[in-house]
Amino acid sequence: MFLYVSLHLIFSFSVMATAEFTKDLCTPAFIVDLDIVKENAQAMQERFQKIGVQLRPHMKTHKTLECADIMTAGSRRCIVVSTLAEASFYADNGYDDILYAYPLPFDKVDRCAELSERLALFHIVVDNQHALQELKKRPLKQGKVWKVWMKLDCNNGRAGLPHFDSAALQLAQEISEAPGVELTGIYAHCGNTYACEGEEQIKDVAQETTTLTLQFMEKLKSAGIHGPKSSIGSTPSCSHPVPDMAMLSEVHPGNYIFYDVQQSLIGSCRLENVAVRVLTRVIGHYPHRNQLLVDCGWTALSHDGGGRLPTGYCIIEGHPDLKLLSMTQEHGRVEPISGKLDFSQFPLGSLLSLMPYHACATAMMHPVYFVHSKGKITGTWKPTRGW
Amino acid sequence: MFLYVSLHLIFSFSVMATAEFTKDLCTPAFIVDLDIVKENAQAMQERFQKIGVQLRPHMKTHKTLECADIMTAGSRRCIVVSTLAEASFYADNGYDDILYAYPLPFDKVDRCAELSERLALFHIVVDNQHALQELKKRPLKQGKVWKVWMKLDCNNGRAGLPHFDSAALQLAQEISEAPGVELTGIYAHCGNTYACEGEEQIKDVAQETTTLTLQFMEKLKSAGIHGPKSSIGSTPSCSHPVPDMAMLSEVHPGNYIFYDVQQSLIGSCRLENVAVRVLTRVIGHYPHRNQLLVDCGWTALSHDGGGRLPTGYCIIEGHPDLKLLSMTQEHGRVEPISGKLDFSQFPLGSLLSLMPYHACATAMMHPVYFVHSKGKITGTWKPTRGW
Repeated sequence: MFLYVSLHLIFSFSVMATAEFTKDLCTPAFIVDLDIVKENAQAMQERFQKIGVQLRPHMKTHKTLECADIMTAGSRRCIVVSTLAEASFYADNGYDDILYAYPLPFDKVDRCAELSERLALFHIVVDNQHALQELKKRPLKQGKVWKVWMKLDCNNGRAGLPHFDSAALQLAQEISEAPGVELTGIYAHCGNTYACEGEEQIKDVAQETTTLTLQFMEKLKSAGIHGPKSSIGSTPSCSHPVPDMAMLSEVHPGNYIFYDVQQSLIGSCRLENVAVRVLTRVIGHYPHRNQLLVDCGWTALSHDGGGRLPTGYCIIEGHPDLKLLSMTQEHGRVEPISGKLDFSQFPLGSLLSLMPYHACATAMMHPVYFVHSKGKITGTWKPTRGW
Repeated sequence: MFLYVSLHLIFSFSVMATAEFTKDLCTPAFIVDLDIVKENAQAMQERFQKIGVQLRPHMKTHKTLECADIMTAGSRRCIVVSTLAEASFYADNGYDDILYAYPLPFDKVDRCAELSERLALFHIVVDNQHALQELKKRPLKQGKVWKVWMKLDCNNGRAGLPHFDSAALQLAQEISEAPGVELTGIYAHCGNTYACEGEEQIKDVAQETTTLTLQFMEKLKSAGIHGPKSSIGSTPSCSHPVPDMAMLSEVHPGNYIFYDVQQSLIGSCRLENVAVRVLTRVIGHYPHRNQLLVDCGWTALSHDGGGRLPTGYCIIEGHPDLKLLSMTQEHGRVEPISGKLDFSQFPLGSLLSLMPYHACATAMMHPVYFVHSKGKITGTWKPTRGW
């Protein structure tokens, strides 16, 4: 996939670097627009309330308590996490009904058991017989049962048993029959929406994933297995759901809370919906090579996207004529896409606002997020890290 | 630059994933071989002791106290840092004589002043007139003077005044004449060694940088400026120094403490000198697409290198026939370079040891490093983060 940014889009939104609060921040800084975050959360909540499907938001993009509270509308229930560090962090902060959406890692069975025994609902994901054997070897205490979602691969090509493989139904049956284990649901991730360009292609993938998942649910019923839930998700498909998704039990998108340039190129959102920036300062002028340096290297932005945009590794807000050409650990090289740079526009010490290619990857680089609303810093969020 | 790994090299070193201690670690885990770290540190110390040049090691690769103690042979003096977070972290832990090797960021002048007033020696780097003005606006207390290194660009093309630009001598003169400011040295970074293939090319760049820096030192003397030191550095050039480097005051390499696949391809080291790995576990078998999944995504390895190796994003130790094809946030897709995968060789839950393309970028992703020696875990190191 190689998509081009429509440069005209870049002109239409506000220029963060000129906001008053930015002058007081040491750079590079990861800034989060609280109002856009709330809009993104609310739009997703309303979208699935309307069709009666449970939204189980994924925490992997931000990994903070404050943002989780917004995504769960304060319920602190019904979330997805990508690591056990996240699961423990949220459990420690009063969250429950946590789904660890990851193929059961054999080194973490004990930690999963402890969370299952401690929380009202802790869900795990399995896509093979060996994982089921690991669960049987560690029966839960307190009369609890393992809450297991079987991962189904509906042409995404990452984890999960392929939908066309008879082993899928067979494993589902074995899970449902195993003592101390419950087949809680069927889980499909339509990450293949990330190869889409535009709403129509997204909807095609959403439809295919939905259809294949619902067909599998029918197979389960035919085999006498009633009760398991169904869940599919990804930010693109949940931003443009197809009507059949109303027949699912749950959806589990995550990135939508921030969105990013990649999502705008896929067609999930518009650039106005992107809630996050890396704020950076000009630290050098080099007219002999028509470049300036900024204090944003890959430690602040990540290498995600590989610089494939016409504007390089990000979009420089308000400056569609500039390109973040390359980064080293703490330096970014900026030059015009064409022509001579007017250095007087970018004094040393002045601010630029970078819209990340992939918000999950950029957020991961920051130990603190600066949250702002209506031109003022309102607080800081601290993510959990590790595994 | 696009280099190929000599696959025969991969067979020659020990396979970390079979070491006893690895079985107890939750994955993904960043592991550091203490003995190799000590060898790398000692080799660099001896190399420059022999020619009478001060080694001022760079902390950016690891950012830990324990590794800094090894690199400074316990002196806790004479280091380089890439962020003020590092500077403060080391100052808080009794380090002194710290050089903040970064074009003076205007938002951090006050923090630099405080460190200058607090430490016996805190050095900053300047490459333009405006930065010098910022220093004059904030004279140091306690009779202290700003210790300023002027950055000279000897064809690296990142920060620094170009060696061929008369503005360089002019700025050096102004720094040396400014009240409350001392021209402590001339600083050149030969990052252009990263485009080299082999020792001969590295030495060519090392020679060029050395010659240009020493020529500039002569210009300073001719202008009546005596006393400033000279420093060049980069891991490739300091791993293969040319004789003329004996005429420099200091060198400032950093990555050598860990080395990595990239450095082996440049010619700085052999793969046996690489001290770090990401330990990962097999979490899925997918015979229908001839792939397995491991629990190492870009959160554990980084995207650095862009997957350009014949073996993808890393070298999988002991398995030169395997490729880390792609990564998402927490998943890595592994497949054979050619032919059918023998899944029985890689049971679910078994360990693989990944040698990173770029150790600085991989270390950055981990909140804790697991340190081992002679087959046992000897401790954990916790890096500082942020800016």
